[in-house]
Amino acid sequence: MNLDDSSPLSSRRRFLRWSAIASGALGGAACESGPSDGPSSLGAPIRARGEPSPFEKSARRLSASKTPAQASSRTPLGDSYGILTPASLHFERHHSGVPNIDPAEHRLLIHGMVERPLIFTMGEIKSLPSTTRTLFLECSGNSGGEWSKAGGPNSQTSHGLASCSEWTGVPLRLLLDEAGVQADASWLLAEGADPCRMQRSLPLEKAMDDCLLAYAQNGEAIRPEQGYPLRLIAPGYEGNVCVKWLRRIKLATGPHMVRDETSKYSDLMADGKARLFTLVLDAKSVITFPSGGQSLSGAGSHEVTGLAWSGRGLIDRVEVSTDGGASWQDADLQEPRFPKAFTRFRMPWRWDGSEAVLLSRATDSSGYVQPAREELIAARGKNSIYHYNGIKPWRVAPDGSVTNVEI
Amino acid sequence: MNLDDSSPLSSRRRFLRWSAIASGALGGAACESGPSDGPSSLGAPIRARGEPSPFEKSARRLSASKTPAQASSRTPLGDSYGILTPASLHFERHHSGVPNIDPAEHRLLIHGMVERPLIFTMGEIKSLPSTTRTLFLECSGNSGGEWSKAGGPNSQTSHGLASCSEWTGVPLRLLLDEAGVQADASWLLAEGADPCRMQRSLPLEKAMDDCLLAYAQNGEAIRPEQGYPLRLIAPGYEGNVCVKWLRRIKLATGPHMVRDETSKYSDLMADGKARLFTLVLDAKSVITFPSGGQSLSGAGSHEVTGLAWSGRGLIDRVEVSTDGGASWQDADLQEPRFPKAFTRFRMPWRWDGSEAVLLSRATDSSGYVQPAREELIAARGKNSIYHYNGIKPWRVAPDGSVTNVEI
Repeated sequence: MNLDDSSPLSSRRRFLRWSAIASGALGGAACESGPSDGPSSLGAPIRARGEPSPFEKSARRLSASKTPAQASSRTPLGDSYGILTPASLHFERHHSGVPNIDPAEHRLLIHGMVERPLIFTMGEIKSLPSTTRTLFLECSGNSGGEWSKAGGPNSQTSHGLASCSEWTGVPLRLLLDEAGVQADASWLLAEGADPCRMQRSLPLEKAMDDCLLAYAQNGEAIRPEQGYPLRLIAPGYEGNVCVKWLRRIKLATGPHMVRDETSKYSDLMADGKARLFTLVLDAKSVITFPSGGQSLSGAGSHEVTGLAWSGRGLIDRVEVSTDGGASWQDADLQEPRFPKAFTRFRMPWRWDGSEAVLLSRATDSSGYVQPAREELIAARGKNSIYHYNGIKPWRVAPDGSVTNVEI
Repeated sequence: MNLDDSSPLSSRRRFLRWSAIASGALGGAACESGPSDGPSSLGAPIRARGEPSPFEKSARRLSASKTPAQASSRTPLGDSYGILTPASLHFERHHSGVPNIDPAEHRLLIHGMVERPLIFTMGEIKSLPSTTRTLFLECSGNSGGEWSKAGGPNSQTSHGLASCSEWTGVPLRLLLDEAGVQADASWLLAEGADPCRMQRSLPLEKAMDDCLLAYAQNGEAIRPEQGYPLRLIAPGYEGNVCVKWLRRIKLATGPHMVRDETSKYSDLMADGKARLFTLVLDAKSVITFPSGGQSLSGAGSHEVTGLAWSGRGLIDRVEVSTDGGASWQDADLQEPRFPKAFTRFRMPWRWDGSEAVLLSRATDSSGYVQPAREELIAARGKNSIYHYNGIKPWRVAPDGSVTNVEI
């Protein structure tokens, strides 16, 4: 290990020296009585399912809506660790509530421009060769408030419509090959079994590449809010395309131009025209600690950490600035990294106690660099509420409090 | 892709042809009415935390005990997917119940043969450089019933004291370096804050290698049953060493010879002597589908799948037999594989409808091959209740039902 003064490890070691000195004073007395005693009477008995500690208040943040069935919930990214999101905290977006589907009754139809229309039971799907991938999902409306600097007070409100899980299911390609896609087909329609029959179009090329029909998430059956019993997962594409409660796939010669790809989930440009089918999510990152609503305990060494992701592949680099963008340092990236998944970045930081503005900037394996807010607006205008991926600033005040500030 | 008749893919494709034919008859009528309709009224509103579907009955199995605080629970491996175990389903073993610890009050003491005894708050620990690893944990008593052919009816009862999670925390080495370990120290004692003050000894070499002080599991704060707010994770070592509710680490010149490493968690050999400190868990595997208590829907193609793990590193190979060990085939291993983590294996299997006995055999990156039951007993005798890792057979009856049979 390189321990010269310029290495991050060196600053980590310095902090540890400092910590030793600080703790020494505390520890002098404490060592005589030992650590905190902890409970002396028997603890709680065993339970069939575990729950978080009552001291942990982390939860999804629900959108305010007159129609509870037409709603969204946001992942508490500020309380996240590693790259996974527990299923119970994975973001949601529902258009007509969460249906309660009996998997024994559920069927998937594949029809339209195919040689053999097919219907599959869940048992048939689960007997097919399966595969597992760790993938992020992100609503294309995530950070939509940032277009107008109304992203809210913390990383949950500004970036919480993104999560990352281990998904298990069957490659969509297997089922399409079996149905026999006709030569002229180039798109498909995916439809959910929720009451509104949510529909989205998907290029056939993507479906044949890496799409999954997922029935499990993070090691257990997918949960109702996430599409139980079957969800289309289109890695790196906007979350709305990852149709939940999947009941039907129809092959066609073009997109179906349904509501959620014409009036919604499209980008209205400055000239009045709209970008449609901007499905691949561009590289993005957010610092999760220290981020809005959190606080630093005091000057000294801290770990700056956050998440980065790209619909185009791997995150190859994340740079962090602690001076509002005047200078940048490469953060460490958690290994192993997965394409189209969250990547955790970390950087030791010695805070001098003065006001600081923290930023992160991701670069993906296609060479794309996450843009500054002004660059993004220069290219796209400010009409859209979708696909915001600008660099996100957080301000640390001298008292250690952290707020969402647009610089 | 190699589609000649001898390849697994070829049998997959054959199944899909078969599936198409079978579904065609079903689908002929169904295609006129479409897939199952699904609900037509609004679904459930959004919730702060998600829960599994009421159609999923998967849960931990609790040990029967006169003392609920001295108990264990087992992961439902037969319902597992991929390599992760949700925190709510991770196995547990408690010696005096689950304490409810306030993280603001919790302290970790490092003392004994160190230059500077230190006490750390949780805030101090969480400000240090962190790391994340996907790791299995296994109780050394897992599969203990197999020594006497009493492993129970299914993979949960026989192998459910093993689980796999993404753990985040601080390398133990950082804290030990800071305390300054004295030259003569070679072991440490780890002690929990549960009422019984669970203690285990650990070689210093292991502590300096890859041990973690974990405060997060699967992306959220570690849960009370798993050691909230702080747990020692010793990758690849028996679970009992991974002390929960960690409050104290004491450096010494040897092991402390505490109850759980003398009267318990040791292997009584045939000659009356006991093996002590057999900490590294040997390679092991279990088929999770089809496994005891499950059933096959009928003759035809199925996916045989299961989990393998080793405390010595990577799983390099899993062989599956469907004829009681007369012949073996290499299963596919889910990528990426992680050292000292679950590895998911999968193999397509065309069942002819006759009685079959299924086995799996793991080989790890050290070259160690999981032994047959007889080999294990020849080497160790049958006095121990710990460290059983023999090959596990499941019998498939002609009616498709699967049972635990010792062959």
